[in-house]
Amino acid sequence: MTVSESTFLTAKPILLAPGPVQLHPEVQKILSLPMIHHRTPEFDGIFKTVLKNLKYLFQTKNDVYIQTSTGSGGMECVLVNVLNPGDHVLAVVSGKFGERWADMAETFGAIVHRLNCPWGHAVQITDVIAALKAHPEVKIVLTQACETSTATTHPIQELGKLLSTTNVLFLVDGITATGAFPTPMDEWHIDGLVAGSQKAVMLPTGLSFVSFSQKAWPHILKNKMPRFYFDIRKEQLANQKGESFFSAPVPLIRSLDFVLKEIENISLEKHFKIIHSRAEYTRLMSPHLHLELFSKSPSDSVTAYLLPPNFEGAKFREHLEKKYALTVMGGQDQLKGKVIRLGHMGFISREDLHQTSLRIASGLNDFGFKLNLDEINSISQNLLKSY
Amino acid sequence: MTVSESTFLTAKPILLAPGPVQLHPEVQKILSLPMIHHRTPEFDGIFKTVLKNLKYLFQTKNDVYIQTSTGSGGMECVLVNVLNPGDHVLAVVSGKFGERWADMAETFGAIVHRLNCPWGHAVQITDVIAALKAHPEVKIVLTQACETSTATTHPIQELGKLLSTTNVLFLVDGITATGAFPTPMDEWHIDGLVAGSQKAVMLPTGLSFVSFSQKAWPHILKNKMPRFYFDIRKEQLANQKGESFFSAPVPLIRSLDFVLKEIENISLEKHFKIIHSRAEYTRLMSPHLHLELFSKSPSDSVTAYLLPPNFEGAKFREHLEKKYALTVMGGQDQLKGKVIRLGHMGFISREDLHQTSLRIASGLNDFGFKLNLDEINSISQNLLKSY
Repeated sequence: MTVSESTFLTAKPILLAPGPVQLHPEVQKILSLPMIHHRTPEFDGIFKTVLKNLKYLFQTKNDVYIQTSTGSGGMECVLVNVLNPGDHVLAVVSGKFGERWADMAETFGAIVHRLNCPWGHAVQITDVIAALKAHPEVKIVLTQACETSTATTHPIQELGKLLSTTNVLFLVDGITATGAFPTPMDEWHIDGLVAGSQKAVMLPTGLSFVSFSQKAWPHILKNKMPRFYFDIRKEQLANQKGESFFSAPVPLIRSLDFVLKEIENISLEKHFKIIHSRAEYTRLMSPHLHLELFSKSPSDSVTAYLLPPNFEGAKFREHLEKKYALTVMGGQDQLKGKVIRLGHMGFISREDLHQTSLRIASGLNDFGFKLNLDEINSISQNLLKSY
Repeated sequence: MTVSESTFLTAKPILLAPGPVQLHPEVQKILSLPMIHHRTPEFDGIFKTVLKNLKYLFQTKNDVYIQTSTGSGGMECVLVNVLNPGDHVLAVVSGKFGERWADMAETFGAIVHRLNCPWGHAVQITDVIAALKAHPEVKIVLTQACETSTATTHPIQELGKLLSTTNVLFLVDGITATGAFPTPMDEWHIDGLVAGSQKAVMLPTGLSFVSFSQKAWPHILKNKMPRFYFDIRKEQLANQKGESFFSAPVPLIRSLDFVLKEIENISLEKHFKIIHSRAEYTRLMSPHLHLELFSKSPSDSVTAYLLPPNFEGAKFREHLEKKYALTVMGGQDQLKGKVIRLGHMGFISREDLHQTSLRIASGLNDFGFKLNLDEINSISQNLLKSY
């Protein structure tokens, strides 16, 4: 029986997006537990443990706070707690989420200097130095650790080092990064870091996590920005009493408790390695699928395959979904229809990776490619041996 | 076998808080389903249905929007979309959540006139009229439909009627109200209404729902308040394309879809009746438990029993939790230790109600009351016959 005949007979749906991601079976169970109240001794115990273990994920001695929001809510939280209306901000813009953070800062009264990078490229340190020289009044630098829309990482360690000797605050969107690859907050001198639940901690959407450096706190305390829901001072006071300020989403926090313990059990290092090896596999499959990598600085959390010119990318993505039960993401904004993006976070088996390659290859053939599926099958299996 | 010997042998945990509430078993199942992405045709279909059915819940022709936040995030959303910094606001303050909304308005630059009511009392229309006369510059009135902290309802219909003939916008916190008892947005001239997921729609915490009247929309469009995460204009544009602007929390939206259909199937009227009958039962048990009702305008969504003077209320609540696996809420702020609050929303069986009375009675006896449990048992059973 050839691959094409056999493989898709019992196609189980696969979700390989850069969030939300496939859930751990244990998380699925925890999500369905009977409700408990968030003002009970049972929940208090879980909450305290989660707050402690988030520090391990963030690789920080600072407190980490939980918000009930999407990642963008977390970005707003990090921003409005340190930004004073009228502050000058340097925003690295290399994709949709860089745009979003720059827009957000502008909305809240910042004077924003955009450092535009070609999509798919990492920002150059020399360009940042030049921009800071040109705008010495800049108080805050914004960047993504991974720009999700282009599957590209920026040199966070180098940027942190550069800014650590200045008064500039370094705010990092680690939503598709923190927990997927190293963003050690303290060691890399990050002043504000945000992560999201539907990414490396493989939960549903609904929580964001934020933390601030000692350098950032005086700004938080004296800052005049009006803020209430995202006011981290309220949450800090409540957390000190072992509580959340607002109602806490119990099923997500209980699941987070499980996942953080899992990550601690296998160690963050090993957890990073697992995600890295999925990314490596995906990158190594690229030539065999005749799809180039879009990013010049590819992330371990998500990979973008560049589709050929004049390829009907949006239809292709829908086709993968409908015929092969494979959900990957398309491109956004200027990349619409031009790439497909595969996430490497969440509960992903070796077979999921293998199936994904086969389903993409089959889909490409449906769109006129002439890939040899049996060959791809054996290449993929060989690569996964060392996985 | 007497009640005291028999009843607690197999005590199943009961959660009767004014949110979060006990989940429908079907919701528990839906929460545990494998993840799907929120940018897929399958999710798009669910999202569209949910947006339609939320209008039924809100009893409005206006669009209803979903935010990933707690109820307080929804309160901020309603507020910042219509409030211009510097606007005069009249805030009905009759408990913790009235305080919160007034504080929030002040935080965002409003000049807030607090109309303080004694806790447990409904606001008097005449007092509102007098306050509006004293402050003719008021542009917005804020009130709770139900002040959760005191289990008290305010006369929303009358207030809406009063304000409908003026230019003043009427914003209503329906978090512990909408879906539990009538707050027909259009008929009662409500200009901004917010509801929360962990209340009458019996989901976990994590979603808030907001809607605005036609009278409110011009304010939303011209308002200068900086807003991003809670900017309803973004969400409106995305919803018109059948999408959410930010990532959507898939398990909650899928569960919401189920619950809204359930409510439509039995009808909102019947749904209200069920919740009302639980509240009625709880109120009728009050004299038999020797606990007065705290509120002079008791809500159908939550009941507060007043504890005797010098009663160790906080310990009593803990005792109910530990010995009887019964979670009810205590009092907040000035009511701390002075009341227990029982929610009437969520998936509650007749047996849950009966058990709650018995467990409270037993707990009271542990704290020195001399209630006859067998008598309470038969009174409760009689009341529940007509339930």
